Amino acid sequence: MNAPDRTDPEGAIAAAAQAYSNWGRWGADDRLGTLNFLGEDERRAAAGLVRQGVSFSLAQRFDMDGPQKGWRRRTNPVHTMLDTGTDAAAGLQGFPHGLGGADDVIAMPLQCSTQWDGLGHIFDHGRAWNGRDAATTVTSEGDLVTGIEHMAHQVAGRGVLLDVGRAIGTDGELPDGFAITEEHLRATIEAQGPSSAVGRGDLVLVRTGRLSRARREGWGEYAGGPAPGLSFTTAGWLHRTEIAAIATDTWGFEVRPNEFDHAFQPLHQVAIPHLGLLIGEMWDFDALAAHCAADGRYECWLTAAPLPITGAVGSPVNPIAVK
Amino acid sequence: MNAPDRTDPEGAIAAAAQAYSNWGRWGADDRLGTLNFLGEDERRAAAGLVRQGVSFSLAQRFDMDGPQKGWRRRTNPVHTMLDTGTDAAAGLQGFPHGLGGADDVIAMPLQCSTQWDGLGHIFDHGRAWNGRDAATTVTSEGDLVTGIEHMAHQVAGRGVLLDVGRAIGTDGELPDGFAITEEHLRATIEAQGPSSAVGRGDLVLVRTGRLSRARREGWGEYAGGPAPGLSFTTAGWLHRTEIAAIATDTWGFEVRPNEFDHAFQPLHQVAIPHLGLLIGEMWDFDALAAHCAADGRYECWLTAAPLPITGAVGSPVNPIAVK
Amino acid sequence: MNAPDRTDPEGAIAAAAQAYSNWGRWGADDRLGTLNFLGEDERRAAAGLVRQGVSFSLAQRFDMDGPQKGWRRRTNPVHTMLDTGTDAAAGLQGFPHGLGGADDVIAMPLQCSTQWDGLGHIFDHGRAWNGRDAATTVTSEGDLVTGIEHMAHQVAGRGVLLDVGRAIGTDGELPDGFAITEEHLRATIEAQGPSSAVGRGDLVLVRTGRLSRARREGWGEYAGGPAPGLSFTTAGWLHRTEIAAIATDTWGFEVRPNEFDHAFQPLHQVAIPHLGLLIGEMWDFDALAAHCAADGRYECWLTAAPLPITGAVGSPVNPIAVK
Amino acid sequence: MNAPDRTDPEGAIAAAAQAYSNWGRWGADDRLGTLNFLGEDERRAAAGLVRQGVSFSLAQRFDMDGPQKGWRRRTNPVHTMLDTGTDAAAGLQGFPHGLGGADDVIAMPLQCSTQWDGLGHIFDHGRAWNGRDAATTVTSEGDLVTGIEHMAHQVAGRGVLLDVGRAIGTDGELPDGFAITEEHLRATIEAQGPSSAVGRGDLVLVRTGRLSRARREGWGEYAGGPAPGLSFTTAGWLHRTEIAAIATDTWGFEVRPNEFDHAFQPLHQVAIPHLGLLIGEMWDFDALAAHCAADGRYECWLTAAPLPITGAVGSPVNPIAVK
Repeated sequence: MNAPDRTDPEGAIAAAAQAYSNWGRWGADDRLGTLNFLGEDERRAAAGLVRQGVSFSLAQRFDMDGPQKGWRRRTNPVHTMLDTGTDAAAGLQGFPHGLGGADDVIAMPLQCSTQWDGLGHIFDHGRAWNGRDAATTVTSEGDLVTGIEHMAHQVAGRGVLLDVGRAIGTDGELPDGFAITEEHLRATIEAQGPSSAVGRGDLVLVRTGRLSRARREGWGEYAGGPAPGLSFTTAGWLHRTEIAAIATDTWGFEVRPNEFDHAFQPLHQVAIPHLGLLIGEMWDFDALAAHCAADGRYECWLTAAPLPITGAVGSPVNPIAVK
Repeated sequence: MNAPDRTDPEGAIAAAAQAYSNWGRWGADDRLGTLNFLGEDERRAAAGLVRQGVSFSLAQRFDMDGPQKGWRRRTNPVHTMLDTGTDAAAGLQGFPHGLGGADDVIAMPLQCSTQWDGLGHIFDHGRAWNGRDAATTVTSEGDLVTGIEHMAHQVAGRGVLLDVGRAIGTDGELPDGFAITEEHLRATIEAQGPSSAVGRGDLVLVRTGRLSRARREGWGEYAGGPAPGLSFTTAGWLHRTEIAAIATDTWGFEVRPNEFDHAFQPLHQVAIPHLGLLIGEMWDFDALAAHCAADGRYECWLTAAPLPITGAVGSPVNPIAVK
Repeated sequence: MNAPDRTDPEGAIAAAAQAYSNWGRWGADDRLGTLNFLGEDERRAAAGLVRQGVSFSLAQRFDMDGPQKGWRRRTNPVHTMLDTGTDAAAGLQGFPHGLGGADDVIAMPLQCSTQWDGLGHIFDHGRAWNGRDAATTVTSEGDLVTGIEHMAHQVAGRGVLLDVGRAIGTDGELPDGFAITEEHLRATIEAQGPSSAVGRGDLVLVRTGRLSRARREGWGEYAGGPAPGLSFTTAGWLHRTEIAAIATDTWGFEVRPNEFDHAFQPLHQVAIPHLGLLIGEMWDFDALAAHCAADGRYECWLTAAPLPITGAVGSPVNPIAVK
Repeated sequence: MNAPDRTDPEGAIAAAAQAYSNWGRWGADDRLGTLNFLGEDERRAAAGLVRQGVSFSLAQRFDMDGPQKGWRRRTNPVHTMLDTGTDAAAGLQGFPHGLGGADDVIAMPLQCSTQWDGLGHIFDHGRAWNGRDAATTVTSEGDLVTGIEHMAHQVAGRGVLLDVGRAIGTDGELPDGFAITEEHLRATIEAQGPSSAVGRGDLVLVRTGRLSRARREGWGEYAGGPAPGLSFTTAGWLHRTEIAAIATDTWGFEVRPNEFDHAFQPLHQVAIPHLGLLIGEMWDFDALAAHCAADGRYECWLTAAPLPITGAVGSPVNPIAVK
């Protein structure tokens, strides 16, 4: 795919949507999109990737020290206690035989930290995944059709880390505004070797190094600001490879600013409603990436189960990679 | 262990705590308790249990139709939308090139549905896991020492389903108040065959059938009321088997009412602060149990990663079993 | 107004809407509805009603012990602590010179307890107050036009208690399903004497006794169930009297079940979008009513300021009556 | 009171606490503190201050655009919709006869915007108001003794605006770090004239101009940063005048940085637990101040009723001043 006309995002989106649509591919009632590529065969094969038994959490921590600054009413998680050990130790709880307890509550946007975008998260001209009417699919009751609860059991399979930051960047990091193209993805795969071949049903993990930088320099605009990320031109690759899902260590998956003069997340507009692609954001690949770089094996068994929140268009997730 | 004196829960708890304590077993700084039994060897072996690649979510759905009725300020999850497809379709969002989006928020007690109890959830006479002072361990800032975020990468290993409801109960269900003893657990293992042997590092799943009944008859007092569950007398078994974690399909893990005249969750008071045992509650085993009954294989590869909420004493979880 | 045809709520609503509409009465940009009737003259006169200086809160308490049971995702308020005195006394807060602090958080539906319905709360066939398009007036961003913040300074004036429960009911209470008609209102005013004459700009308080019963018998279906309340046929009285606002001690203001075979809150559908009437629900008149019955004076100086929550379609309120 | 020793806040606090304590003044069971100074006589007299009937809201708006940045887990209010007009207009709600509705929810710290500090908000060496043990007064259940619900009906009386910003400052504003002393208060009263005399039972409103500046320049550190405010040395004045409550247009009431080398809110530590003084913060006096400056009358009828949230140590409030 050539670089699109910077002045015409709408045209570029329409062309990509037509070229790469998966509408109808899995029937009119489909609620899973590209997760359909990840079936029992893929899952069984992926289990064979566990060699050492070492496990990695790919989640950031969920707390008030996160990157959110209120943009689009997204706060950091607010975690409060209903009961505490301090109360228990002071004998204030009224339980018998010396029992004490602590209990807690959370309030958070579903996309405040490490998360999946559900299929109801993005629309193109009023159309949701599979061509559905956005108006009747996602109301203030939630996503009535493609709520993330339908994916509850599905997201376990082969994970492949493409550490583009390491392969292409400087000191393991790409700069903000760096658009990762198909060529960069291919070069990364080549540099990493055969364990990082990408194919049908894979859960692809793209490390840009943006989180490593935030960790070093402070959050700044990590949530909502400029970032490296996928180029709009990778839409064809995302479609052709038949991957089941993709995740990045940035807030927005695709490069920011976007590759048009006036645009906002154009690749989302193709990938979610037209490809039906599950997209993960704000994942933390650093520990896994160090291990992969050390042993040269970039594939793993990955479980990244969304919380089955009825009608949700996204979900916090603690993805677990095992090698 | 004999049936304890019904009039003396405090004495019974003290005796069990002394007999089955793991304090200091993994050093003074330990934050993982019995998860220490689940290491790379156990995890590697467990991955070999994936034969078909079929996956099961062991989570209930998270929504307002759940079982909570306000007991101990526990509500059902409140999920609300920040943006909707209806707004997007009506052209009200102000995004360029036809982009539309939906976004959402949740507020919930961390133990309102399928969940893990963290090590900071229960205390014995002001003592938390490993002998720590409850007062300084879990304040209104949260669990400052054993917060559930420390377990983020850990909970992936061999799952073993003990379908006690099916083996011992009537039509697959145990009645409320039924205390599952070591004998019942052994009889279940024997009935199910060698795939359900329980050992070091296992994640044990005890199905009572209580959830199946709630599903059929309505929630009633599912959250907080009478239930079948583990007998207080299983404390020794829980200790001796060196399991890493255990979960049930009930709200409270142990039998309710408890086996003392005046008591509240005495087995918790031994299992969490003294054994350091990770306990799961309100899990849904029905689909997995049907599959296990059909093929006679009761073990699986299980990933049940808590959300790494800093300082949390519990976490919602979507456990994924793969066979 | 005669009793409407029980089989045709839509016709009855349309007729009432046409007969009693205030659309355009205060200009196309109006955001206040009948609060326009309450100006400086009315407010100045009302302040003269303070004779003793005795004050009454007309609010219920906001806590988990309230009447909500989850209907329409309405929970009771969840109030949690960020810091506690227990932590402070244990020396866990890290402040200098012996300072300790407590701080707290709340999560609640805006209409979970004593509250005002804002003008954006109810629509008639897609029309909001003053004839506006509901779709563009109240989106998932909130009420963009008539948000309750616009009423922030307005609601202070003459309150008039109509204790219909006492005047018409048995032991001070009306039964569920009792429809309060214009005749009942007039009889109450007559029984109470001249201090309860109702006129332009008044804030009318209608006591049914329903809350007194809930206090005695338990919440039951207080929030969402059957109740005494205003008859649909009072729409003309509400319009003709030119009152500024009206409140009841029930969850739903109008009689439940409604006076049609198949209907839901038809008087709301006239009163809010067509009259622009501010409606209060779940107020507590019992202490005020006892005082009024004792001294025979049913009018007071009333301040009932909504929290200026930007874009809200309702607000919790602590109304203060002073006599 | 002389300027205290900058190196010894603890000594200065102890001295002030001893000199100005109201412990026991209203009996051992007191829950109201200085609100006891505001009785029926004061309230009746205050009602006579309503001359024109003009009303002012002294509240900031409650929304995501507020000043909070996450300090001490304080977020801005998160207001979300349960139902919208957009849904209603699209015919998605399922109500009969053309009825549509909107409903909403809020999650917020109780002290995120215009608010009262309750008596349980601050402790001195583990002691709460009236000498109570902080540990047993405010647990994670909330304030079990002096919860703000006990003040529900109380806060209506004479308001007096002391526009120190206008009388002493430049262009109506005091700079950050400006400590308002008794002399400044007296000079303001003298400059404003007899309507601003301060006495027993008054609700005193101290305008610094800090909010006006934030409105002009952006929030910056409005919530938690440097600010003008009351000097520690005003403790005696606060005690001697027998005022019922005091409020400022700043986040923290007293001057920041505080007047000691290492201190945090020392005047709070005297005023709340020892005087039992109700303190308001983040109020908006600008419209009222303009009116007072124009007519030379600085007193008003003020109603500032906290939401009766059971066990709360603070409450959002929409104070209404009427002149």
